[in-house]
Amino acid sequence: MRVPFIKMHGLGNDFIVLDARDAPLPPVDADVARALADRHTGIGCDQLILLQPSEQADFRMRIFNHDGGEVEACGNASRAVALLHAAPARVETGGGLIDLRPADGGASVDMGVPRFGWEDIPLAYPMDTLTMPVGWDMLEEPGAANVGNPHVVFFIEDCDAVPLETLGPLVETDALFPQAVNVNVATIESRTRLRLRVWERGAGLTRACGTGACAAAVVAIRRKRVGRSVTVALPGGELQIDWGEDGRITMTGPATESFRGEFEWDDFA
Amino acid sequence: MRVPFIKMHGLGNDFIVLDARDAPLPPVDADVARALADRHTGIGCDQLILLQPSEQADFRMRIFNHDGGEVEACGNASRAVALLHAAPARVETGGGLIDLRPADGGASVDMGVPRFGWEDIPLAYPMDTLTMPVGWDMLEEPGAANVGNPHVVFFIEDCDAVPLETLGPLVETDALFPQAVNVNVATIESRTRLRLRVWERGAGLTRACGTGACAAAVVAIRRKRVGRSVTVALPGGELQIDWGEDGRITMTGPATESFRGEFEWDDFA
Repeated sequence: MRVPFIKMHGLGNDFIVLDARDAPLPPVDADVARALADRHTGIGCDQLILLQPSEQADFRMRIFNHDGGEVEACGNASRAVALLHAAPARVETGGGLIDLRPADGGASVDMGVPRFGWEDIPLAYPMDTLTMPVGWDMLEEPGAANVGNPHVVFFIEDCDAVPLETLGPLVETDALFPQAVNVNVATIESRTRLRLRVWERGAGLTRACGTGACAAAVVAIRRKRVGRSVTVALPGGELQIDWGEDGRITMTGPATESFRGEFEWDDFA
Repeated sequence: MRVPFIKMHGLGNDFIVLDARDAPLPPVDADVARALADRHTGIGCDQLILLQPSEQADFRMRIFNHDGGEVEACGNASRAVALLHAAPARVETGGGLIDLRPADGGASVDMGVPRFGWEDIPLAYPMDTLTMPVGWDMLEEPGAANVGNPHVVFFIEDCDAVPLETLGPLVETDALFPQAVNVNVATIESRTRLRLRVWERGAGLTRACGTGACAAAVVAIRRKRVGRSVTVALPGGELQIDWGEDGRITMTGPATESFRGEFEWDDFA
């Protein structure tokens, strides 16, 4: 069985999209996802996106990490699907219903309500998450937020000068964070603009982390260093983060189709 | 302009194949090769293979590394092309004319006559290439061969214990090798079997290097450590290397088509 696919990326975070909304596919399991995600012997991707029919929404989006595990949501993946769908849509995900709106060259995605309680991050013991009295070498007094996953954000005069490949894993695995943590170093460039680098939990340095951009923005907003609408410049490109008065974060940014192809299902099943 | 391509691999060493034998393509330069080879924003590959018409042979094969540099020869790429062509062929390469023969699930490739002169490798100054009186940390007294591209081969009790990600680039860029060099670490397991890891010039650690397998085999044969027919076990799988009495090397091994696709030329040019 020849199966068509679309390869896409959002700021370098890349996806295989399998569209089973009209024509059904054999079941996608962890083995198939891993085989297709292999960058040498498969198609290669960070995440595999499977679109299926839904009874509650316009369609259903399922997301498999390259290790085969299914995850609830991914902001970059949502932008790619919005670009592909080319119309506003309500989408069923493992994390609930989300609204996608295509924007110029990409999409806007509702990223939900951030949480700031120490037990929400989670931390190992109670602490004010706005300005935490802790530090690691040149990284001091971070803020923390959970935006679907846990983040700490350090504000630094020049975030490009931080040796994140050594300090990132040190903070990530500190006993203060029982579920580990994503490590963000941000530089405030103006009331409307941050520069950001992210050490992603379990993934290391990446070109762009959508949830990191949300976390850096909301921590900076809580500290009154920026307004509620912030451009976040990551190594892979820029995201626009808006924190609405209703408490919900909207992330707007680009998505790109790289190429289209076809593979033989039996080669990967 | 929509351009079709085929994605293939030989033992996990993966290729984008662009076939311009019948329909010409715009020029492929280092920038295009790099953009297509990017694993997140392009198609992704170790090497880009460009097939073109030839006046001296059935067709011409050009090979670009993922850093954009053009290289003379790649044994794994030759097997992939042989599988694709599905018939015996004489092929023009930067390293000379080679003969391809499809074999069961892969191909046999005539890898030509290895050269052992110091000026053939090339080295910066005269030296016996059978046992070179040089060393880098735990890597000592290599042999050298040019099998279409330059190789040094170190024989080590346990090649898996070599920190090739640090020693590889050190040897690759040493002034002794004016055109840089591919770095092989091999363990002799029997008279008919080697285990091999390769740091490829311009590509780094790979799962399997066909020319490296040839170089390791002929250096071991010259040192009378193995017979003229050798199985070389690489991290990605096994290759059979035969060094004929006529001086020519034949490499036999698998090749696989992963998928086919189409991209928009202007997105990458």
